[in-house]
Amino acid sequence: MRLQLLLTGNELMSGDTVDSNSAMIATRLGAVGYPVDRKVTVGDDLDMLVAEINAMAATSDVLIVNGGLGPTVDDLTALALSRVVGRPLAEHPEAMSELQAWCERLGFALNDANRKQAILPEGVTVVRNPIGSAPGFAIEHDACLIICTPGVPRELSAMLDGDVLAAIQHRFPRADERSTLRLKLFGIGESSLQQWLTETVADWPAAVELGFRANFPLLELKLTVRRHADEVVREQCLETIRSMLGDYVIGPNDTTMAQAVVEILTERGLHLTTAESCTGGLIASMLTGVAGASAVYEAGFVAYSNAIKSAVLGVDDAALARDGAVSETVVRQMAAGALQRSGAEFAVAVSGIAGPTGGTNEKPVGTVWLGWGDRNRIDTRQLLVRGNRGYFQQLTATIALDLVRRRLLGCNGEPRYFTDRAPPRR
Amino acid sequence: MRLQLLLTGNELMSGDTVDSNSAMIATRLGAVGYPVDRKVTVGDDLDMLVAEINAMAATSDVLIVNGGLGPTVDDLTALALSRVVGRPLAEHPEAMSELQAWCERLGFALNDANRKQAILPEGVTVVRNPIGSAPGFAIEHDACLIICTPGVPRELSAMLDGDVLAAIQHRFPRADERSTLRLKLFGIGESSLQQWLTETVADWPAAVELGFRANFPLLELKLTVRRHADEVVREQCLETIRSMLGDYVIGPNDTTMAQAVVEILTERGLHLTTAESCTGGLIASMLTGVAGASAVYEAGFVAYSNAIKSAVLGVDDAALARDGAVSETVVRQMAAGALQRSGAEFAVAVSGIAGPTGGTNEKPVGTVWLGWGDRNRIDTRQLLVRGNRGYFQQLTATIALDLVRRRLLGCNGEPRYFTDRAPPRR
Repeated sequence: MRLQLLLTGNELMSGDTVDSNSAMIATRLGAVGYPVDRKVTVGDDLDMLVAEINAMAATSDVLIVNGGLGPTVDDLTALALSRVVGRPLAEHPEAMSELQAWCERLGFALNDANRKQAILPEGVTVVRNPIGSAPGFAIEHDACLIICTPGVPRELSAMLDGDVLAAIQHRFPRADERSTLRLKLFGIGESSLQQWLTETVADWPAAVELGFRANFPLLELKLTVRRHADEVVREQCLETIRSMLGDYVIGPNDTTMAQAVVEILTERGLHLTTAESCTGGLIASMLTGVAGASAVYEAGFVAYSNAIKSAVLGVDDAALARDGAVSETVVRQMAAGALQRSGAEFAVAVSGIAGPTGGTNEKPVGTVWLGWGDRNRIDTRQLLVRGNRGYFQQLTATIALDLVRRRLLGCNGEPRYFTDRAPPRR
Repeated sequence: MRLQLLLTGNELMSGDTVDSNSAMIATRLGAVGYPVDRKVTVGDDLDMLVAEINAMAATSDVLIVNGGLGPTVDDLTALALSRVVGRPLAEHPEAMSELQAWCERLGFALNDANRKQAILPEGVTVVRNPIGSAPGFAIEHDACLIICTPGVPRELSAMLDGDVLAAIQHRFPRADERSTLRLKLFGIGESSLQQWLTETVADWPAAVELGFRANFPLLELKLTVRRHADEVVREQCLETIRSMLGDYVIGPNDTTMAQAVVEILTERGLHLTTAESCTGGLIASMLTGVAGASAVYEAGFVAYSNAIKSAVLGVDDAALARDGAVSETVVRQMAAGALQRSGAEFAVAVSGIAGPTGGTNEKPVGTVWLGWGDRNRIDTRQLLVRGNRGYFQQLTATIALDLVRRRLLGCNGEPRYFTDRAPPRR
């Protein structure tokens, strides 16, 4: 079965919107054996839409069109489909009743802009939208099942698991055996990893396809097999990799650094606290983005100014004056202060210069001190993390959490970023 | 001039990676008069790559291929291009010297995996990569300029402004006059906005093309003209919209809610502090993501547990026991405590149930109390924000900042989310 996606919208062509819908469609349908073969994106241009739907329908078994179902003038999917299938647009009774039910549920009055969403090509089947106002619709044309879906991600998401998947499964009940295992790594680059694998695993089995992707700030390694029978061989490959790469493995599939840290803390019944200057709450936000974080994370401090570092975290005014806010003494005292104020067993503290301004010759933008540990021992380290403000904050927050992870797991050996991002010697 | 993009990579097809590169290319080139007409995405499949490059080159003046230049086995762009242009692969002297320079700069030894990146089709021109190891390359084929670029976003970014744009401008010096003005809104939906515009602005000028896009949690309104001469009419449209939509306008172009708040605080010389429970540092992180935030934001508190709300922010234990952490009394005391501890003039406090667990019949998941104000008056409000944990945290944090913005600007009238997201009456 050949599945293609057509994404529509001027906002996708202009670059104003980053398309995350196609990734959602591919992930969900791929997981149940319907991988996506090809994607095309065009703007809100009627002629291009008609030409593209025609060309793609001729080379697909299923074509999912995403976007252009909204109430506004630049939403053209229904009109384009009506040209392709050669049937006029008309008010669709089932779509209209879906729309009315939506309005009633939310207590809105049905307006003309909304009403446009029920004007569909004659002969289509309604694909129900359990969340939003725009119903989807499907029709068979040129031996291809064409399914039109809305561009709002939450609505698309709800429909994928419902009517969209049902329509595909009804038409093409057979799913393939292909499956992918993924592993998240941190602190090792793609080419080092490739080199390492080539050198170490001389006889890599042909049945296990290797893939990599940069998933900043993590790296992802993917192991794909095309038949269930090859899954055993893959398990062995996975074991080899785990034993080779040890400390760099964060976890399987979509594990985030914060999830890995929350899991370890949960297992050990420990609490973490954060004292952030340059990362400004990002570490806290990454941790509390994880469901269940409240069991291991109770308190965090964002201490941007010197006065607050001293007033809230008890950092010594003399140390701030002598060494500056970005210094070993200060991160050590920030971590100690956070431990004391929060009652947590473990702390991580960060102070640095995120930029774009604030750098000096001695402490350029990107300079950062990290401190992490417990009441018995606080470790500290200085790094130089070059990049724009967002990059600096993301990478620094991830390194901070990785240092907590490594310390709690008792990892031996220094992570690569200690040497790759060491501050220049003076 | 017709410009198309070909994005390659199994990670784009499987949905493991959300493609942000094509948006970057479209934004940068669109801004200097080279809009993108069409995008196609295929996996790391040699036959599909060859077929797609051939088909796209035949219908474009410029084709930018992105991805597949890396050192690993699934990087196939050079091989595919060599088939398309009918020239063998060979070590390219200039590419090799670029690669060697990169290794020297970073103090790495050149390994075989890296060396593969200098094996290119004969006759290509090197497109320099000032950051990473993979040089780009370009060649003219079938009257189309084909430019191959790496998939790593930072590298692509540096090359776009350098050799990529130079190559396009050299070949097609004429840029068009098209330009787009964008306005960010918060608290109003797309169909309400469309309806409002249709009813209020009866004689909308044809020269000014209207577009909308959901840019969660904001909404974007776009006004495009195709000729410089129409920019005056657009200014008038913009004024009409600003006067009509007043309080819902956050700012032009890529203004974020946090930027708008930081700007207002900066103008007035005020400081904001945050006391977060369910948003767990996200409000702090949004604020400190803005360059220059340190002038207006000095301290933030993440108080997840009751003990910390009381120990760090001075919330009354009796109130916590009587009303619960998610209550008007508690957010009011959190805001007051943050004002007192930080010395800031303005505070915002949030306490709610992000989910997926922790809800009760009386306070379901999504229930949130917000408190905001200064020493003289703290306002409070209860809302019900339905959605998953990430959606809840993002939307709640944005509403919290919007309430600060509205209070500081002295906006009249209640925002729509007060009614749209009111908790159900009991």
